[in-house]
Amino acid sequence: MSGPIIVDSVAALRAQIREWRQTGLRVAMVPTMGALHDGHISLVRTALERAERCLVSIFVNPAQFAPTEDLDKYPRQLARDLDRLREAGAHLAFTPTVAEMYPAGFATKISVGGPSSGLETDFRPAFFDGVATVVTKLFLQAAPDCAVFGEKDYQQLCVVRQLCRDLNLPVEIIDAPTVRDSHGLAMSSRNAYLSEAELDVARKLNAVLRQTAAELASGANETSSTSAATDALVRAGFRKVDYVAAREAVTLAPWRRDRDGRLLAAVWLGTTRLIDNVEIPRA
Amino acid sequence: MSGPIIVDSVAALRAQIREWRQTGLRVAMVPTMGALHDGHISLVRTALERAERCLVSIFVNPAQFAPTEDLDKYPRQLARDLDRLREAGAHLAFTPTVAEMYPAGFATKISVGGPSSGLETDFRPAFFDGVATVVTKLFLQAAPDCAVFGEKDYQQLCVVRQLCRDLNLPVEIIDAPTVRDSHGLAMSSRNAYLSEAELDVARKLNAVLRQTAAELASGANETSSTSAATDALVRAGFRKVDYVAAREAVTLAPWRRDRDGRLLAAVWLGTTRLIDNVEIPRA
Repeated sequence: MSGPIIVDSVAALRAQIREWRQTGLRVAMVPTMGALHDGHISLVRTALERAERCLVSIFVNPAQFAPTEDLDKYPRQLARDLDRLREAGAHLAFTPTVAEMYPAGFATKISVGGPSSGLETDFRPAFFDGVATVVTKLFLQAAPDCAVFGEKDYQQLCVVRQLCRDLNLPVEIIDAPTVRDSHGLAMSSRNAYLSEAELDVARKLNAVLRQTAAELASGANETSSTSAATDALVRAGFRKVDYVAAREAVTLAPWRRDRDGRLLAAVWLGTTRLIDNVEIPRA
Repeated sequence: MSGPIIVDSVAALRAQIREWRQTGLRVAMVPTMGALHDGHISLVRTALERAERCLVSIFVNPAQFAPTEDLDKYPRQLARDLDRLREAGAHLAFTPTVAEMYPAGFATKISVGGPSSGLETDFRPAFFDGVATVVTKLFLQAAPDCAVFGEKDYQQLCVVRQLCRDLNLPVEIIDAPTVRDSHGLAMSSRNAYLSEAELDVARKLNAVLRQTAAELASGANETSSTSAATDALVRAGFRKVDYVAAREAVTLAPWRRDRDGRLLAAVWLGTTRLIDNVEIPRA
């Protein structure tokens, strides 16, 4: 097949979506920051199961990076991304410039409370404001019927669901499971920063989380289990552990054994920050 | 005619709008807080000139009142409002409850910078966050083609324009001139709070603003003119003047004589706060 249509303006995006909608085609969106890996491709596959047309946005959103973070070194590889989208059968790639998304004088910010409290926000205070603002813009630019988000960024998934509910954004949010390598390491564009030695350590994160979640599900004390998990991660070679925390699965409120739970973690290897999460089955 | 269809749920609203849109009818929205007066009716007339169907929302939005403000005593008179909408030829009244607009767990806030700086925000810091959030929700609930806002709330008009531009909300914003009584007093639901004696004072506000704007347009010094206007308003009987300020007409940045300008004021009579504004023609 010939590969996705590529548009970089909101006007061209809307014209194409309108054409599809007029012929009755359902449109699914996969918002990304590019540097596409198998995790993203699985989101595209989910999108194609749910709709006749799949639109993938590729936009490294400055609003969700703090000044100290990796905006400048974040991997950008558009040609390779477009090859992967062609292979996956995506129909449209939306690749706006920063000026198209945030024209001179741009001044609006969306803040979602609830599930954005704590976890990532304790370490990246402006991150979810940036996510909520760009996701709202992308949804209003493209007006998709549904959008697919990965469980890899679990707190983001919860924040986007809350955002759509609160603002009455008429977009169905579909979650897709995290794609992992054969050692359990969650696919992430930031894995590209890791050395071979760091990769060996990174591959231990998911095992520690799975074991801790199993202990919690079997009645272990929450504080001692998450604290033991932090110790185990440091012993495994992670430089720093931002958090290992059990939460209620939908609201991300404090975990309760009688509700579906989620165990979430953020850790550092050198200058690279990795996140992962696993289910805690209810008692 | 039989009067507007009345709906109080988002689902019923969307169903009716979808039906209109499917038959190719253009929809104009007039967001209000009820207590409808001739100013609102003129917005409905403008809407009916621009679209085949006119939807009026009536919702006293708690998010734009501070705890110290007049949320509880704000005039509510739904039956009378519906009579006026029937006379004016509006097709649909959307009268949601607070629980329909802000269900339990609601947690999202939209902040618009730029034109929301200063003026009203100096005295009502959370006001435009409340306006931006509810306007975004109403637009996403109803998906109108266009929406009509009065120049009476001039800063709000500028903030809504900025909001739509920044978030790519696909709604055309139409402004409508302020409707005044024969003495120049701008129509406002809050005029209902005024005694006869206070009304006599209130009617002097517009004349002072018009005279000051004319002086500014003729080259008078900005600081001395606005300060003289404040003195004149106090002498006329206003209890307090929050501000009399000249601004650039679109961005509300500091006024420049070579751009279209606007003179805005907020004043108090007893416990009632009134606002008004007039054009400053460019030099």
